[in-house]
Amino acid sequence: MTLSRSWVESANSASADFPLNNLPCGVFAPGDDDPRCGVAIGDFIVDVRALEEAGLIHVADEPVFKVPFWNEFMELGPDVWNLFRERLTELLHEDAAERELVEPHLYPAGEAEFFMPFIVSGYTDFYAGRHHATNVGTMFRGAENALPPNWLHIPIGYNGRASSVVVSGTEVRRPHGQLKGPNDAAPRFAPCERFDFELEMGAVVGMPSEGMVSVAQADEMIFGYVLLNDWSARDIQAWEYQPLGPFQAKATATTISPWIVMRAALEPFRTPTPPREKELLPYLAEPGPMLYDIGLEIELEPEGRAATVISRTNYSEMYYSAAQQLCHHTTSGCPMDAGDLLGSGTISGAVKESRGSMLELSWGGKEPLTLDSGESRSFLQDGDTVRFRGHAQGDGYRIGFGPCEGKVLPARAL
Amino acid sequence: MTLSRSWVESANSASADFPLNNLPCGVFAPGDDDPRCGVAIGDFIVDVRALEEAGLIHVADEPVFKVPFWNEFMELGPDVWNLFRERLTELLHEDAAERELVEPHLYPAGEAEFFMPFIVSGYTDFYAGRHHATNVGTMFRGAENALPPNWLHIPIGYNGRASSVVVSGTEVRRPHGQLKGPNDAAPRFAPCERFDFELEMGAVVGMPSEGMVSVAQADEMIFGYVLLNDWSARDIQAWEYQPLGPFQAKATATTISPWIVMRAALEPFRTPTPPREKELLPYLAEPGPMLYDIGLEIELEPEGRAATVISRTNYSEMYYSAAQQLCHHTTSGCPMDAGDLLGSGTISGAVKESRGSMLELSWGGKEPLTLDSGESRSFLQDGDTVRFRGHAQGDGYRIGFGPCEGKVLPARAL
Repeated sequence: MTLSRSWVESANSASADFPLNNLPCGVFAPGDDDPRCGVAIGDFIVDVRALEEAGLIHVADEPVFKVPFWNEFMELGPDVWNLFRERLTELLHEDAAERELVEPHLYPAGEAEFFMPFIVSGYTDFYAGRHHATNVGTMFRGAENALPPNWLHIPIGYNGRASSVVVSGTEVRRPHGQLKGPNDAAPRFAPCERFDFELEMGAVVGMPSEGMVSVAQADEMIFGYVLLNDWSARDIQAWEYQPLGPFQAKATATTISPWIVMRAALEPFRTPTPPREKELLPYLAEPGPMLYDIGLEIELEPEGRAATVISRTNYSEMYYSAAQQLCHHTTSGCPMDAGDLLGSGTISGAVKESRGSMLELSWGGKEPLTLDSGESRSFLQDGDTVRFRGHAQGDGYRIGFGPCEGKVLPARAL
Repeated sequence: MTLSRSWVESANSASADFPLNNLPCGVFAPGDDDPRCGVAIGDFIVDVRALEEAGLIHVADEPVFKVPFWNEFMELGPDVWNLFRERLTELLHEDAAERELVEPHLYPAGEAEFFMPFIVSGYTDFYAGRHHATNVGTMFRGAENALPPNWLHIPIGYNGRASSVVVSGTEVRRPHGQLKGPNDAAPRFAPCERFDFELEMGAVVGMPSEGMVSVAQADEMIFGYVLLNDWSARDIQAWEYQPLGPFQAKATATTISPWIVMRAALEPFRTPTPPREKELLPYLAEPGPMLYDIGLEIELEPEGRAATVISRTNYSEMYYSAAQQLCHHTTSGCPMDAGDLLGSGTISGAVKESRGSMLELSWGGKEPLTLDSGESRSFLQDGDTVRFRGHAQGDGYRIGFGPCEGKVLPARAL
């Protein structure tokens, strides 16, 4: 695949996140106006609600974009998703006949405010990164017991808190919680001292299901992908998580990128999951490559200082794909809804510079990082901004997600 | 408190679940008509949508009951909840002046179909029964390690799957999943062989919150309570639950009673949590009694046979109240929504006949139960119906919930 050229000139740059090949879905407000669905193109956002009102796009008999979220569009299914992409491609292509009709509905992205692109019906977070699971397991249980016995057989996941998912740019308040060090006689209630991020991709389920679906069906149900930061309170987690898993440690916030990159835009970048150390049960077999080659990086920006890139990794590092996770999610008969969000699990590579959390980068605080500003970090400090970026690299173009960022605010006084 | 008499004669029986003192909230369809909000009174349901349309009740400037769920009403807050109860009490009281206006809006409950009384925004399941935690812990980890170290300090909970919550009467399909016995070399994918119920109460959050709330505020946020069956696949759970907690083992279905009993109806039955073995952190202190004296029983009915009552217990057995759980739920800053459902955790008493799950009643399958029909049970079989009943006992009246039941269907052929 090569670049599709648009009459929006900024979309044709090799370093643009949003060329015509991408067309990611978000919700934005132009100026003081109300939020509506939009699609990014170069440095602009095309107002999809306005296009529908003007009769330039038509996806269903009733208007779909009168609501400021993508759920209703997603429920129309993959055929409509593809027709929508085709039509938008036609309208924005450098040879477009209708350019003059579309042009009034472009807004500069730099002046827009962003909102959650979809209503999160359910949020499930997985644990599918082998390097991450090995690193964390080694710290918590020792190298011999690092990977739990089920890990090579099950895409391990747990239900997260849908109400806590926020869009990039939302500030994140350091949580309180019960903290108890290994040598403390009793827990105390205090602000988290080991606040952390987790670099993940999120898969957005676009089609509902009842009963079990296959991996191939699961892949078809996925509307697109976002960058995702699963903010984590490590000290709260360590004390609370046995025996029923993480709860308040993961409930403060989960940040996603403002843009959902549709699966169709990522097709050229499919890549297989790695060779299996233990054979998977047949229901988890993949009919083709189900991961994506998406380069990722993490910036940490202390308040008033320059940002430091503290890690670079790739989504293709995962052991399980989102399609496998979604298939497994339905084995119990669990109903899935349009707007379900599946976090991939933390994406850490094999080397230290590719780890996806402070817990791993500072090895539980024992090996603090030195930032470009000269400061050191074991965990996040108040005022720190964490910013994820990611893109798939095509031939002369990229498919980007826009930043997924949030700033840590001090704990509220109680 | 004594019985308030209604002109609906069946509401005045000492054994009626729904006297005038109760007025629980559900969603029903009369005959072939569409679902709408209703309140139970004796053997009838009063159509609340119709009362609002007729101008007999007025809770907000805009109609609230045009939708078939109680979320919009709940969001109006405790003052409106109380005014609504006062007005319904006036309309249904034996001395009611408007009896003839209300009478056309009564439907026989026996002819109604029931629907989910509210949209479940989020579902959290707790683990607050000490006998249950001790029993399960003893079976899984031995008597010395039965209670995890955090258990006496934290109302332990995990996020469940909101999309899987169903109303009483919904049939429940035996799930598939990964099963691996302790002596198996590898897991297999097969129908669950240890399918179980868990007897719980559910607290329905009626008011949203942002940031942390106190126990007293949390209590005020609770709209009411339901009976709740947290169907559980024990063999799936045993293999999947480390390290991130139960996932597919709890995602098949969670059944609730058709009626939400408003907190106001339960006020006379408040009872304190038990003495603390370890002092709780101050944020969890209760300003008054926050549990309720609600007698509960479990019936197991094999297909085509008579039902056997297999357990009797009481909600007052819990170690943590729903108000404490909800307060703890917000410590991280987790936003709560109207329609959040909090499962209490399995309610087991101290003796064998008061245990709240088959896992405990049959002690992990080692001591099968004998039913009145002569059959034995270690776990649930296809065709079994599990039915919970519960009520608070007043002076000559009771506050009941209606049955919470579901029948187990055979696993789907794959």
